[in-house]
Amino acid sequence: MAAVLTLTTDFGLRDAYVAAMKGQILRVHPTALLVDLTHEVPPQDVMTAAFLLRQTWSFYPEGTTHLVVVDPGVGTARRPLAMSYQGHTFVGPDNGLFALLLDGATPDALVVLDRPAYWGTPAPHPTFHGRDLFAPVAAHLAAGRTLTDVGTPADTLVPMRWALPIADQQGVRGWVMHVDHFGNCITNIHREVVEVRRGPRRLKGYAGSTILDGVHPTYAAVAEGDPLLVYGSSNHLEVAVNAGNASDLLGIRAGAPVNIVFLDEA
Amino acid sequence: MAAVLTLTTDFGLRDAYVAAMKGQILRVHPTALLVDLTHEVPPQDVMTAAFLLRQTWSFYPEGTTHLVVVDPGVGTARRPLAMSYQGHTFVGPDNGLFALLLDGATPDALVVLDRPAYWGTPAPHPTFHGRDLFAPVAAHLAAGRTLTDVGTPADTLVPMRWALPIADQQGVRGWVMHVDHFGNCITNIHREVVEVRRGPRRLKGYAGSTILDGVHPTYAAVAEGDPLLVYGSSNHLEVAVNAGNASDLLGIRAGAPVNIVFLDEA
Amino acid sequence: MAAVLTLTTDFGLRDAYVAAMKGQILRVHPTALLVDLTHEVPPQDVMTAAFLLRQTWSFYPEGTTHLVVVDPGVGTARRPLAMSYQGHTFVGPDNGLFALLLDGATPDALVVLDRPAYWGTPAPHPTFHGRDLFAPVAAHLAAGRTLTDVGTPADTLVPMRWALPIADQQGVRGWVMHVDHFGNCITNIHREVVEVRRGPRRLKGYAGSTILDGVHPTYAAVAEGDPLLVYGSSNHLEVAVNAGNASDLLGIRAGAPVNIVFLDEA
Repeated sequence: MAAVLTLTTDFGLRDAYVAAMKGQILRVHPTALLVDLTHEVPPQDVMTAAFLLRQTWSFYPEGTTHLVVVDPGVGTARRPLAMSYQGHTFVGPDNGLFALLLDGATPDALVVLDRPAYWGTPAPHPTFHGRDLFAPVAAHLAAGRTLTDVGTPADTLVPMRWALPIADQQGVRGWVMHVDHFGNCITNIHREVVEVRRGPRRLKGYAGSTILDGVHPTYAAVAEGDPLLVYGSSNHLEVAVNAGNASDLLGIRAGAPVNIVFLDEA
Repeated sequence: MAAVLTLTTDFGLRDAYVAAMKGQILRVHPTALLVDLTHEVPPQDVMTAAFLLRQTWSFYPEGTTHLVVVDPGVGTARRPLAMSYQGHTFVGPDNGLFALLLDGATPDALVVLDRPAYWGTPAPHPTFHGRDLFAPVAAHLAAGRTLTDVGTPADTLVPMRWALPIADQQGVRGWVMHVDHFGNCITNIHREVVEVRRGPRRLKGYAGSTILDGVHPTYAAVAEGDPLLVYGSSNHLEVAVNAGNASDLLGIRAGAPVNIVFLDEA
Repeated sequence: MAAVLTLTTDFGLRDAYVAAMKGQILRVHPTALLVDLTHEVPPQDVMTAAFLLRQTWSFYPEGTTHLVVVDPGVGTARRPLAMSYQGHTFVGPDNGLFALLLDGATPDALVVLDRPAYWGTPAPHPTFHGRDLFAPVAAHLAAGRTLTDVGTPADTLVPMRWALPIADQQGVRGWVMHVDHFGNCITNIHREVVEVRRGPRRLKGYAGSTILDGVHPTYAAVAEGDPLLVYGSSNHLEVAVNAGNASDLLGIRAGAPVNIVFLDEA
């Protein structure tokens, strides 16, 4: 039986906040297999956390518990939640992140975490529910407790929606959602949005200081230092530079527009 | 039986120094459950390492071994130590860090690590006792060896003391010990130092370019972008900004003074 | 039986690329003991990856699998490989890194990974073979599959050689290969290259803005803030500053020359 437990936060690694959560988990479930998804989500950036988790969780074994603590409202009335979806369990605050993950789908089950018996302390510190509430509950769930053991069924989530690109038969207008470690500029334009509309037509992309010709299969399909469009590993369109940092070299930051135009000549 | 082993260093993550220690541990104890506390302690900063470990170790299961290698004197005559305290075991160099952790308390047991049979090699490299001496000994301890197996009892530690704030019935003068990943400025002023003296009085805080009114229960108790005082998750007073970086926005760095004044009017 | 699996990449930690690989591994081998070697290899820097792995892998238990994905040619015709050497298994693309690791030695066995049954999908995404091909194969190998289960024997590797210092009876001319987290400037000059030639002679080192007198046993052998030469933990000569950052203080970066001169007077 898998007892994998992933952790996603905006805590960074230079404090011991993540380590405090892991200690709490191991006190509840000493053999949990802990995996860091990332702790470098920009502070309070629920959308980036959702983006990174969304492209990753399904690569984990069924039965995995995903603890996600990006929690700008810690200590306020925002609800602590757990939900199950397609055999995975998610634990974290009700701040829109779960709605982004589901993207319109319905959770298989959803509960509000209102059972202090499963918390690390009956009085969680108001600035750190990650350590005192979410981590212990996630550990109990990974150890085999059910959602209805640790909480009370709920119906609704704080809503949040992905901002979608604008697309028609002439092209697609989107923008950069995330600049990755390599400087690849990952847009909100999914492969399908482009491919169902372009048919056999060629396309050009306009981004930052450059014009890009077509979509290439991989980075090294162009010469080193050349820019390109490519569908990245999450099948979102990326502006990249082979063996270079596209964000720095082309002056493209998160939020920058990326326009795709379909060319009628063959 | 728990075989959790935490690691705290100033080695960073871009070299393979931490990984070399983990390899040595796994050679001795192949099923050790390794958890990084942090590896981003500022170089040679024994006090920050002690601060981070002190607020975290007790969240781990009894029986945990904590390996702490911030070791500016590596290869000199400073002694390698292991101690037990409240059911946990600590391993590292004798450079004041253990004294800070204990804060005046007496270890349950303390030994000098003088048994090469438990080291990775009889001749540890003089620049890396973390890999060649401390990691293997910590692994043997996590695997069940006793302190007196791996060393010879000792009586004294290199002394070091926490710098305490100055407090009287009018207020408290302290300073910033640590700026965390979010820019929260964590002071050396503990909740008790304030609360036992203020009684029913209001208080004001003076820090960097701002004046702060009262202590709030959590970050989101003020508007986004507003500064506040809050008792953080280690119950130290913090200067913070809701959804912002207090250190950057208010110009406060580690070492900056923070003054608390009790107000006689109600 | 050890099922340790180390991961070395240039992916960084702020995306979820490493986590996606770990998910794929745990789906194949749910109890694999995953250890990060480092994910902060500079982008596409095969030589630094080889340097860090080379000084670390042998500290791991026999039977360890090392997954190494620094893969500028992902999605092109470069071959995916696995090899065994001295009881360890290495998995990654054929881009010179394995040749650097072996440094002229012959692998005990070498295969091209051409069996899609062991991949995560029969059609790996052309920008992320780490997730879709290398990680699943590494997991199968860690779980007990043999090299010939997962691939077809091969004879040759893409060649790459370490750049060696120039040495004669008067001295050694080398350069800085890697600046570590502490600012220590690690050269390509190995202890043996110096010591077999110098005999009883003293030596001076010339690096950046300073002249260094002799090789010291450890950092704290000189006063705080003073520069020194020392053989680091991989037995390469380092230019360091006791309790300081030599790279910053002396203006030395990767690639900078370091000249060692043997002095004939005693």
